[in-house]
Amino acid sequence: MSKKTKVNASILIIGNEILSGRTQDTNTNTLALWLNKIGVKVEEVKIIPDVEEKIVNSVNTMRKLYNYVFTTGGIGPTHDDITAQSIAKAFNLDYEIHKEGYKILEKYYKPGEFNEGRQKMIWMPKDAKLILNPTSGAPGFSVENVFCLPGVPSILKSMIGGLTNKIVGGDPILSKTVSLKTVESEIANSLTNVQKNNTDVEIGSYPFFHAGKLGVSIVIRSENEKKINICHDQILEFVKEKKIEIVNRD
Amino acid sequence: MSKKTKVNASILIIGNEILSGRTQDTNTNTLALWLNKIGVKVEEVKIIPDVEEKIVNSVNTMRKLYNYVFTTGGIGPTHDDITAQSIAKAFNLDYEIHKEGYKILEKYYKPGEFNEGRQKMIWMPKDAKLILNPTSGAPGFSVENVFCLPGVPSILKSMIGGLTNKIVGGDPILSKTVSLKTVESEIANSLTNVQKNNTDVEIGSYPFFHAGKLGVSIVIRSENEKKINICHDQILEFVKEKKIEIVNRD
Repeated sequence: MSKKTKVNASILIIGNEILSGRTQDTNTNTLALWLNKIGVKVEEVKIIPDVEEKIVNSVNTMRKLYNYVFTTGGIGPTHDDITAQSIAKAFNLDYEIHKEGYKILEKYYKPGEFNEGRQKMIWMPKDAKLILNPTSGAPGFSVENVFCLPGVPSILKSMIGGLTNKIVGGDPILSKTVSLKTVESEIANSLTNVQKNNTDVEIGSYPFFHAGKLGVSIVIRSENEKKINICHDQILEFVKEKKIEIVNRD
Repeated sequence: MSKKTKVNASILIIGNEILSGRTQDTNTNTLALWLNKIGVKVEEVKIIPDVEEKIVNSVNTMRKLYNYVFTTGGIGPTHDDITAQSIAKAFNLDYEIHKEGYKILEKYYKPGEFNEGRQKMIWMPKDAKLILNPTSGAPGFSVENVFCLPGVPSILKSMIGGLTNKIVGGDPILSKTVSLKTVESEIANSLTNVQKNNTDVEIGSYPFFHAGKLGVSIVIRSENEKKINICHDQILEFVKEKKIEIVNRD
């Protein structure tokens, strides 16, 4: 893939445990922070249950809409782990034992321990590319622009390092934050004007209440540093005029 | 709405800050736990940016597919808060000042403080029903089966109490968890058999690593307690047979 200015992605979180509230998803945040850093903008996240039809349909929609799709969950050894077979179905590929993956797990486990349950973890779509797993052996895999990762956050994190050279990002998305001791409604109109004057910069306004402090963080985001700075100066202008205290900048 | 056995919902998280990784979403978990408790099964979550077209399309798809839709985010006073106008567009309703909402905020603020920025928070789809906000005045709202809540987690939490009597849940979804000192691949086949014998019960298998302990939690979920118990007994049977230690039950 040649270098593009704008590269986007979507994330598909697969797992009943997130939808029931049993588990708090943190993989979206881990992936979003990493992707943002390498110049890939996450434009959609979907959380769906372990249901083949939903996985197939979601993957087939997303892989056409976005440069990259990342799935998490459903690649373990139990009956509710159906991501690999669903991806095979989505791409109309055979679902079979991955030879290279087999060799990796054969070495990883002690003799006699590489049982049928564990072998399920290297059943993959035909010719899938492996994503190595330095934590617990069983690899993830990719087919075309779809990258399938495990649901356990610590394992997922350990696999990201090996993934970075497979993803070609665009210009990194830069940001600047100004945190103010004010409330949103005091600055809403001024901020609207700044946004109108800088239509290709993304300005977000986020109230915060923490450590007994109340305020608003304004986040300016763009691939273009100059545009961020122009926008930033315009914000500082009305902040000064309104005599609002700046709490913190980064 | 008359009482149904199965009632479902979807959640639409609106906000660039979640997609950029700046903010970790926790509202999905809060809503999922609450809905689960009142017998509403969350079947899909989508996280999208503050873009009108995406909000309109997502809401219009979801409101037809699910009994309830809950949105979070985008109902504050700033330029990037476009949920209310997008919902109006989705339902083809006028976007206007909500009279009852206006009165609430007029009382909430000191004289002279109810400025244009704050007034934006009670611009809503025509005839929207208010969702009262005990924390910070500005109400959420609902139109038909779509309920719009704020993005700030503490405010969202404070509004759930007032929502419960507006949502008619189905039979509560019950669950039983057995946590085992084992790894998934040791029990995968046995668990597959139990799932095959109990097709209308949802059995999830979740490895855990915490406080230096490694194990698997098996979660059995159904509206029918009897069916859960049958499934539970079958699991305990193979656990005993395999001499696996039970760490914890609930």
